[in-house]
This record gives sequence, C-alpha cells and structure tokens, in this order.
Amino acid sequence: MMTDTKLPYNLKFVVRDYECDIQGVVNNANYQHFLEHARHEFLISKGVSFVELHNEGIDLIITRVEIEYKFPLKSRDEFIVTVNIQRDGNARILFIQDIFRLPDLKLIVKAKVTGVATKKGRPVPPGDLIIRLGL
Amino acid sequence: MMTDTKLPYNLKFVVRDYECDIQGVVNNANYQHFLEHARHEFLISKGVSFVELHNEGIDLIITRVEIEYKFPLKSRDEFIVTVNIQRDGNARILFIQDIFRLPDLKLIVKAKVTGVATKKGRPVPPGDLIIRLGL
Amino acid sequence: MMTDTKLPYNLKFVVRDYECDIQGVVNNANYQHFLEHARHEFLISKGVSFVELHNEGIDLIITRVEIEYKFPLKSRDEFIVTVNIQRDGNARILFIQDIFRLPDLKLIVKAKVTGVATKKGRPVPPGDLIIRLGL
Amino acid sequence: MMTDTKLPYNLKFVVRDYECDIQGVVNNANYQHFLEHARHEFLISKGVSFVELHNEGIDLIITRVEIEYKFPLKSRDEFIVTVNIQRDGNARILFIQDIFRLPDLKLIVKAKVTGVATKKGRPVPPGDLIIRLGL
Repeated sequence: MMTDTKLPYNLKFVVRDYECDIQGVVNNANYQHFLEHARHEFLISKGVSFVELHNEGIDLIITRVEIEYKFPLKSRDEFIVTVNIQRDGNARILFIQDIFRLPDLKLIVKAKVTGVATKKGRPVPPGDLIIRLGL
Repeated sequence: MMTDTKLPYNLKFVVRDYECDIQGVVNNANYQHFLEHARHEFLISKGVSFVELHNEGIDLIITRVEIEYKFPLKSRDEFIVTVNIQRDGNARILFIQDIFRLPDLKLIVKAKVTGVATKKGRPVPPGDLIIRLGL
Repeated sequence: MMTDTKLPYNLKFVVRDYECDIQGVVNNANYQHFLEHARHEFLISKGVSFVELHNEGIDLIITRVEIEYKFPLKSRDEFIVTVNIQRDGNARILFIQDIFRLPDLKLIVKAKVTGVATKKGRPVPPGDLIIRLGL
Repeated sequence: MMTDTKLPYNLKFVVRDYECDIQGVVNNANYQHFLEHARHEFLISKGVSFVELHNEGIDLIITRVEIEYKFPLKSRDEFIVTVNIQRDGNARILFIQDIFRLPDLKLIVKAKVTGVATKKGRPVPPGDLIIRLGL
C-alpha cells in the first residue's frame, strides 16, 4: 500500500452531491474539473501564476486530455488528486495525474494532460515556465 | 390553457442528462443557468450586447434572485424559459421569468431577477439600456 | 466585526477557477451549489441522512430560494457558508444562509432557502426531521 | 470542405455564457458534457434507452476518454457534435466524436470515448446493444 510520504503533490477534495448524476456517481466531466483545480493549485504552489504569465504574454493551453476511469466516486467520498509534471519535447508540458479515494487509496482515475505555452496563439518554448517548474 | 401566441419572449431547451442529480431531476442550481441563458439571448434579441455595454463602461449586475420551484424537470424534458422586463425605480431592472414544460406548459419555475446597471462598480441610471429595451 | 465564536454552523470553501465566468467572478448559479453543499453537510452533522430519510419515505424538497448578491467572489478567494434553520409553519423549514469571504468576513451573499418534507410527493409535517434538528 | 450530407449523426448546440471561463472560452470540461449529451441522444435515436438497458441489468460505462483540443469555442458560437461508433473487441464500443464550429465547420475537438457494457459491475459482451446499434 502507498503511504502519504511517497505521494507526489496532491490536493484533497470531498465529493459534493451536485457533482453526482442520475447514476449516483460523480459525472465523468467533473473529474476534469478536479484535475484542473489540482493543476492550478500545483502551479501556484510552484510560484507560477496564470495572471502574471498572461501579463508577460504567455498562456498555457491544454491541447490533449486522456482519462482512464477505473472506479467511480460516490457522494461524500473523500479523495486526492495528484500532480506530476515532465517536459515533452520543446513546447509541451505533460501533467501526469491520478485520483485516489481516501482513506484506502483506491485508484479512481488515471489522467495524462498535455499543455503548450503559447504567445499570441502560437506555441513557444515554455522557457520561464520550465525554469520555474524546475524541469 | 396558454397558447403560444400569448407567450412573451421565450427560449426552448431540452434537459441534458448531466444537468440531473442523484434524485433523477434537474439540480436546483441549473435552473439559474437556464434563466441566465434566456436573459442573455433576450437582451441580444433587443440589440443589447454585454461586450458593447462593457466597452461603454456599463455593466449589468444581478443583485437579487427569487426562485419558486413548482415542479421538477426530468431528463430529456423539453421546456421554454420566458423573459419579461420592467423598470424598478431609477437604477433597477426586473426580469420576470417563468419556466414551462413542453408540450403541456406545466409551470416548473417562477423567478424574479433584479439587475442594476453599474459604472466602475457604482449603480447608475441604466439610461441607454432602458432606451434600448424600450422601458 | 464578527468573531468566529459567534458564527453559526459554517463550512469553508475556496473558489476554483472553473467556477468563475467571463467576468472573472464566480457565476451566480454556483453560489447555489455552495449553499446546497453546506446545507447537506449541516444536515449530516445533525445526524440527518437524505438516504435514510428517503428509505423512510420522506424527501426534503426545496420550494423557494431567495439570494441577495452583495459582492462577488474571485478565483482562489476563501469563504465560508453558514447555515441556520428555523421552522416556518407546520410543513416548512427555513434555511438562513450567508456567505462571507475570508479572512475579512466581508458579506458576499445572503440567502433564504425554503424546504418542505414530502411523502410520495405530498407535503407532510417534517416530524422526525424537526426532532432530529432540535426545532 | 466538408458538406452536411457527408456528416455522420450530429447534434447542434450553441455556447452559453455560463459554459465559458475566465479566458472567455468554453471550459475544457464542458466539451465532455457536450460529447456525452450527443452520445445519449445518438443512442436514443438508435432505440437504445439507458433506463431500459438498466432494467435488463446492463449498464454502459465509460472507461476511457481521449480529447484533442484543436481550437476554442467562444460565447454564442454555434457548433455540432458528431457521433460514430465501432466495436473494439468483444466488450468495448468506441465512440468517435468530433466537434465542428458552425457555419465554417472548423475543427474544435476530436474525441475517442470507450464504453463497456457491464452487468453487476462486470464487463459483458454488449450483445443486445451491439445488435440494436447495428455493429
């Protein structure tokens, strides 16, 4: 079993009733919301602010999302969303994210999210971003 | 029974599965989304664009919402959202909105939404807005 | 200024980016989600489970919502949602709810939410519910 | 350029303001809502009802989603979501879905969604489902 000390950056959530659908489980699209919120909090924890980047003319755009749904979350389940990053070539950043239910760390979702730094809509090497993220 | 010709401005929707919650009916907050979308389409039909207003320094802020939930909508129900407006003093605009299920026009929701025109965060007489809306 | 010790039941949240709209503030409908989640957690803290009630044939239906929007929340703002309850006649329960931004306790939203206990769709005195809530 | 007559099953939408986020474009998670709604309407058009399937003990579970984000949609953009299906082995059904903006049919999203028929939580050959879908 995994222990907390081995886990990468992670953010804790609890399922809210309005996030569940007719089947009584979290609606598939809402996992993307959880993944996004964890990524943003992760970036902020690394000193990367979307607003500041934007003011420097750089936007981080998501270009691809792959999600494997392993097991559904139910109302009031507690869970964590992890975030790991790695470079993917010159322009892309890969976010490797998992969702684990608490307290048993059952795997709920595995996700791979690809981001590209852009300037005026064109991909650019994510220079400063890479440096701040220590990649 | 009401006939279509007597109805005020209205917009047609169909309930999507993801808008329903564990109870199998539309989640209460989503009715507010439907009401908002109908108001925005109504304003655009009157030639009022939020973007243009904003460029003139005027924002229309919602300050109060009253919603009576009469009967729930289920997945795939078709419905219309109506919009009526009236002035309320110098600074406020009142949106009177109903939601009716189709085709039986059963009353689902009654709502009263208060908006205020603001300039730099302060209420102003909604001058141009009033004129464009013919109030 | 209010102090924490004077506050009624309250639940802490942080604004997530996806809850904000084009104006850069929390979309009006999302406050209903926050209010609902706080009510449900409040009821559970009082030993009232929707599932158990439902198995006893009782459903708590929201029939009316009044929300005053005082000041908008922005991305990453921290806030609390309070819950107070009182009886309103024989069949209705009133939830008095406020949203305060943290840490300055600025008033964001004032809400009054009316619930009715129903059995097979008909309003009933919320007997057991009233007792469990100590009303 | 594609013409309407060459398009597979498709459903028309218009972007609602509340579906857009701070960047002024549709939030990434909402595309999954659009894809889901189009799939459900597609299945119903083929005579497949989730409720009936469920009553026969069969549930169609989404196990994997791959989405490529090509270009963002903005408020009030009109668009279509297409649905194509194919078998993937004995247990899996693949939904190939695209989102095109109207009227220029600009490619917005490419998606591949994997579904599995399950009985009491275990994958089963989607027999009746396959027959009804003509696969």
